[in-house]
Amino acid sequence: MPAPEKSREKSSLKKTIPTLGIIAGGGIVPQLLLHACDKAGQDVFVIAFEGQTDPEILKNRPSMLTRIGAAGQIIRTLRSRDIKDLVFIGSVRRPGLVGLKPDLRTAQFFTRVGLRAMGDDTLLKAVRHELEKEGFTIHGVQEFVDDLVAVAGQVGRLAPKKQDWPDIERGLAVAQTLGQLDVGQSVIIQDGIVLGVEAAEGTDELIKRCRLYQRHGSRGALLVKTCKPQQDRDFDLPSIGVETVRMCAENGVSGIVIQAGRSLLINPQDVASLADHHKIFVIALDPESRGHDQ
Amino acid sequence: MPAPEKSREKSSLKKTIPTLGIIAGGGIVPQLLLHACDKAGQDVFVIAFEGQTDPEILKNRPSMLTRIGAAGQIIRTLRSRDIKDLVFIGSVRRPGLVGLKPDLRTAQFFTRVGLRAMGDDTLLKAVRHELEKEGFTIHGVQEFVDDLVAVAGQVGRLAPKKQDWPDIERGLAVAQTLGQLDVGQSVIIQDGIVLGVEAAEGTDELIKRCRLYQRHGSRGALLVKTCKPQQDRDFDLPSIGVETVRMCAENGVSGIVIQAGRSLLINPQDVASLADHHKIFVIALDPESRGHDQ
Repeated sequence: MPAPEKSREKSSLKKTIPTLGIIAGGGIVPQLLLHACDKAGQDVFVIAFEGQTDPEILKNRPSMLTRIGAAGQIIRTLRSRDIKDLVFIGSVRRPGLVGLKPDLRTAQFFTRVGLRAMGDDTLLKAVRHELEKEGFTIHGVQEFVDDLVAVAGQVGRLAPKKQDWPDIERGLAVAQTLGQLDVGQSVIIQDGIVLGVEAAEGTDELIKRCRLYQRHGSRGALLVKTCKPQQDRDFDLPSIGVETVRMCAENGVSGIVIQAGRSLLINPQDVASLADHHKIFVIALDPESRGHDQ
Repeated sequence: MPAPEKSREKSSLKKTIPTLGIIAGGGIVPQLLLHACDKAGQDVFVIAFEGQTDPEILKNRPSMLTRIGAAGQIIRTLRSRDIKDLVFIGSVRRPGLVGLKPDLRTAQFFTRVGLRAMGDDTLLKAVRHELEKEGFTIHGVQEFVDDLVAVAGQVGRLAPKKQDWPDIERGLAVAQTLGQLDVGQSVIIQDGIVLGVEAAEGTDELIKRCRLYQRHGSRGALLVKTCKPQQDRDFDLPSIGVETVRMCAENGVSGIVIQAGRSLLINPQDVASLADHHKIFVIALDPESRGHDQ
């Protein structure tokens, strides 16, 4: 059951740390964590990436703006400020070999772990291991703010109909299998047919292109987005927000299914009212107690 | 090892039947079967679908042009001509409920098997079962012409390099798992990262959109296309041809991997010379004896 909307919307910091190093990717999730830190008086230092992180969040905050390939510089800066605790938050696009412009430290890392034939999970595990070897502790954002993480239950006024459940179940099964293969997290499904599967393109592109493959005459397709089973929860959780709902509304998607406890639900009140407006259901399912009795 | 090019290119009919009913979808594969039939003096009757089958193949041949939803009419026509043996060949796009315009027979079929929550494999199995109940025999195209089916070995002059094999192995594993889930057949992979996975969009669209997600600075991506493990081989085998190679060349794909014995390789000589021209390797791997010693 969802917690009352009020308490889901409010951000309160659960844990405090002398200075929290926030490795901030793109999207608005870093903003939400920073607001929670500001309110709680938590000292932060933000590492932002050129062309990825919204520069707005650096204003009035100690920060550095750099490249993903600047691992040596990042580690030296964190050390000089005596920062030992890190949170990774927001989406990061992998640069190509040319865009990476690795410094010596980054190049050594890639030489050691091997750049080729490495999926996202393997890469993130290697980055984590590397940072832990250097004495850093990696925290999940859920250790600090838990009202970002989706709780089980329906988000707006609409619930899935009985005839949606076979698609929901099949969508979850396909998404989880793809996740295990470290391919992607999201699936678009309609009437038992998987219209599209997310790999490198991201959820928004998936939603857009699947519009072409929907059939008319039945209800719209469903978006099912789950966390990879083996995914490091401290690094990156799948997230949805108002933009996801808007994209679904524009492209004939009539329901959104996410995983309770393992997804970020950004601004749940806004998501709920926009979903209600477009007659889209949004539901977070608990993988441990899944069933039709939500 | 590949058979000599000459014998692969020639089409000779292996099996003859009084009148063979050819249910012809789109693409040029129906044409190739019909040429083989013509050469061997095999009587045929072609069922073609509006907006899908190339109308060119109906010229000078007994045929009917109809809708997918006209099952009753199709069965009556075949009966009246005493046709008992059928081959399904070519790709068929599933119509939506509206485009289907089912006749009574088709509507009864869908009422009985249930239209919703049904993947491609389930649907094809049901169609096959239905036709067999009516006394028809379904044959695979490979029973008639075997030089359409890819034999193990490399098709052009280029072979995969040592560093391609991890991607080939991972691509095969992902494609087979997706096939088991009845999602799709093809995967685009580069440096261990699955750039895209085919579902409803088809291989050409997959190749095009994945161009956006390739990295520069390494070799191009690979296309791995396999047959779904549980797929009814008599209905539909994945196929590649000159157009696939052209699409790969235009979109930075530098290798094509298909499954020997379970894929159609259309016009192998032309595929080989175009692939050589664009420096793309094309290889058919035997799933039973897979290894690096091709």
